[in-house]
Amino acid sequence: MIPDLLTAAQHSTVYNSLSLVIAAQLFTAIFLLISLPRVLPRYRPAITIALIVCGIAAYHYFRIFDSFNAAYTTTAIGGAGDYTLAEGAAFNEGYRYVDWLLTVPLLLVELVAVLALARAMQNKLLMQLVPASILMIVLGYPGEISEDVGVRTIFGILSTIPFLFILWVLFVELSKSLKTQPEAVRGTISRLRYLLLLSWGVYPIAYLLPSLDVGADGWVWKQVGYSIADIVAKAVYGIIIYQVAKTKSWIEDPSFAQQERSHAETVSLTERAVKP
Amino acid sequence: MIPDLLTAAQHSTVYNSLSLVIAAQLFTAIFLLISLPRVLPRYRPAITIALIVCGIAAYHYFRIFDSFNAAYTTTAIGGAGDYTLAEGAAFNEGYRYVDWLLTVPLLLVELVAVLALARAMQNKLLMQLVPASILMIVLGYPGEISEDVGVRTIFGILSTIPFLFILWVLFVELSKSLKTQPEAVRGTISRLRYLLLLSWGVYPIAYLLPSLDVGADGWVWKQVGYSIADIVAKAVYGIIIYQVAKTKSWIEDPSFAQQERSHAETVSLTERAVKP
Repeated sequence: MIPDLLTAAQHSTVYNSLSLVIAAQLFTAIFLLISLPRVLPRYRPAITIALIVCGIAAYHYFRIFDSFNAAYTTTAIGGAGDYTLAEGAAFNEGYRYVDWLLTVPLLLVELVAVLALARAMQNKLLMQLVPASILMIVLGYPGEISEDVGVRTIFGILSTIPFLFILWVLFVELSKSLKTQPEAVRGTISRLRYLLLLSWGVYPIAYLLPSLDVGADGWVWKQVGYSIADIVAKAVYGIIIYQVAKTKSWIEDPSFAQQERSHAETVSLTERAVKP
Repeated sequence: MIPDLLTAAQHSTVYNSLSLVIAAQLFTAIFLLISLPRVLPRYRPAITIALIVCGIAAYHYFRIFDSFNAAYTTTAIGGAGDYTLAEGAAFNEGYRYVDWLLTVPLLLVELVAVLALARAMQNKLLMQLVPASILMIVLGYPGEISEDVGVRTIFGILSTIPFLFILWVLFVELSKSLKTQPEAVRGTISRLRYLLLLSWGVYPIAYLLPSLDVGADGWVWKQVGYSIADIVAKAVYGIIIYQVAKTKSWIEDPSFAQQERSHAETVSLTERAVKP
């Protein structure tokens, strides 16, 4: 439930969190765009999706930020007082769901794309992951917008079912494909799944917080929680996908690696190779 | 503490400083983006991070500038009068912290990236510098937003601990890696650390100024101090990183140097080589 009143400190905590997400997503997208030539052409689709995800998130956070500023206003001098819900302006949480509906399936496509599997295996994984992730978001929505604890609980449980299916695909089905990956990235890709699990885990916790009736503080921490989860699940995740793509590019094309790798690294690798 | 009233002169000093930072950061970012092909591919990640840092700073200064203009208003004709804190609008200093949280770790990554060390050494330095710099910023925040001198002092001291650790890494640990750098850039890289020290040194001074109770003037000089420090620590620093990357590119690839170097320089180098 949206609080009627936020203290100046609560207000600036939400305000600064939302702005942090804009900066993090926007500049991760720009970084990945500029860094596209640092991976082989075959990995550029994965990085393109990663930067598109961050771009979509930046767009939605611009909207959420503006919506928050319109919804809570104060008459205090220097803004140093309580903020109350304004007349005629809603804080629109729907932006988050619209964002997830687009970005969550893309995050899974990004992961499968960087694996660069054989076409049949890739399609099989995508046909399992993409519909399940869309279902997970759609089923969460009625609960998120409801004020009724019963409705929230039912849709919370319903949307957990496709989430568990996604976990099964990631940790059972996808594990079989891990063996085909170069050893240097196998650990990173495996840990990426835990990053998804960890960052997605914030969503249900943030979802449940208002049900616990912790008042305005609960709502503030829900906003902060969503913000951190979105940075980890999209920007940090995208940077790790980029590192995986870079490592694989270097392994698969030594002349490309030669150009991209530091001089010191080349010397150190040669020394290691020469050692008896 | 934020002053209730600024004279027209104080107001325009802050106003012009903030605008100067926007111009400096935005166009340094654009300069570095255009100049990417002037360094070898292996140095482009360092320059990309340098331009992202300036871009993030430009974004936050646009926000700070707008926030300042909304917070202080005047009814004087032609704006030639005192400016007072407006109703319902806060000057949000939080943007600075959100900015540093993203840019300060990246400034250290930028320095390590341009060294182009062997992977193991690079990772070791980053694992020390990045967490310490995040801790330094996070610990400074409660002091910055507090009006209480005691709280400001405690968090000021706490955030100095990771700062001292960063200095130790930069001046002791990193010095060992300096020997692997070409002689032509060794001095510049060494001096870069002093630039960081000098520009970061402005932050604690600006942090302490309000505690000294120097009134509106103290607050105005704090804004000017932060502005200059941000230009030096990000834009000037980024340009120097670019110079280091360019010099190293020329040394490591003579045919690339041939293309990039001025004709006069080529002649002068040839003459020197020919001398007995």
